[in-house]
Order: sequence, then structure tokens, then C-alpha cells
Amino acid sequence: MIVAIFQPLPRSFFDWIGSIAATCTTISFLPQLLRVWRRKSAKDISLLMFLLFSFGLACWLVYGLGIGSAPITVANFITLALALAILFLKLRYDRRQ
Amino acid sequence: MIVAIFQPLPRSFFDWIGSIAATCTTISFLPQLLRVWRRKSAKDISLLMFLLFSFGLACWLVYGLGIGSAPITVANFITLALALAILFLKLRYDRRQ
Repeated sequence: MIVAIFQPLPRSFFDWIGSIAATCTTISFLPQLLRVWRRKSAKDISLLMFLLFSFGLACWLVYGLGIGSAPITVANFITLALALAILFLKLRYDRRQ
Repeated sequence: MIVAIFQPLPRSFFDWIGSIAATCTTISFLPQLLRVWRRKSAKDISLLMFLLFSFGLACWLVYGLGIGSAPITVANFITLALALAILFLKLRYDRRQ
């Protein structure tokens, strides 16, 4: 039923929605990185989450390169860089406390 | 150059890598949800991150439904449910403290 509502809309509309989606899910990790860096604390952040998430992003990167998709490759490269930076700060601040 | 290394591999290999990628980036939010719930604290978690991320996931969901992609729709539906649960707990615990 939901699919039936969306189907009369053109493909270009969904490509546009997809671009907004990729931009939001990618840049959302920037405020998280800044928050951890400013508070010098990452106790509430799950190490397992960021390990799994970073591994998943690395797989997305290989997938993007393999199928030759620039949007998948670029978006996941940026998100991976941010996720690894959060992971690095978490390990650093957790050790201090 | 990196693309040249990957290109001799078959498409089925990358579809497999893509499935691992989607599974990891989706389930990674479960340990984060459990951590917030157990600690009853989400101070180190960025509200802006989870607002932007949830909005982005909702866009991915519309995109998946629009282009008729079951993997995109299902993966983003599960991730959105987990992200909204973390957001709900963050708002709840932040108010208490």
C-alpha cells in the first residue's frame, strides 16, 4: 500500500531523496565527533557499536569500489573517517578515566 | 588503482560484501541502544547526530520504497527503529539528570 502511494512519482524525485538521505546519514557523525572531543568523554558510547559500524562501512567502501559507484564510495569513505575518529577518541578518553 | 585491483572479482562477490556491510551497519546500533539503556545515561551521545541520522534514515526508507528495493527498505527500517529508540532514551535520561 505504501509502495503504491510512492510509485506514481518519477525516479528523479527518489534520486534527490537518496542524495538528501546520504548527506544526512554521513554528516550526522560530525556533531557526535565534536561532542566527544569537547566533553573529553565517550563513556555512553558503545565500543562494539563503533567497531561493528566501522567494519560495516569498510565493507560498503569495498562494495562501492567493486561496483564502481562513486556516491557509495565517497559517502562511506567520509563516514568511515568520522567513525574511526570517534573510535580513536573513545579509546583515548576511556583509558584516561 | 584500488578499483583496478577489485575489478577482476565477480559481481556476486561484491553483492556478498554488500550484504555483510548492510548487516553490520544495521545491527551495530543494537549494542549502543543496550549500553544507553543499561547505564541510564546518554550524555556523551549527540542529540543533533541522532536527529540528523534518523531524518536521513527516514529518507533512505522513502528512497527504498520508491525504487522498490527490499534490502534498502528493510535495513533502513530496522536501523531507524533502533536510532529512534536511542533518541527516545537520550531525551528521557537527559531530562532526569
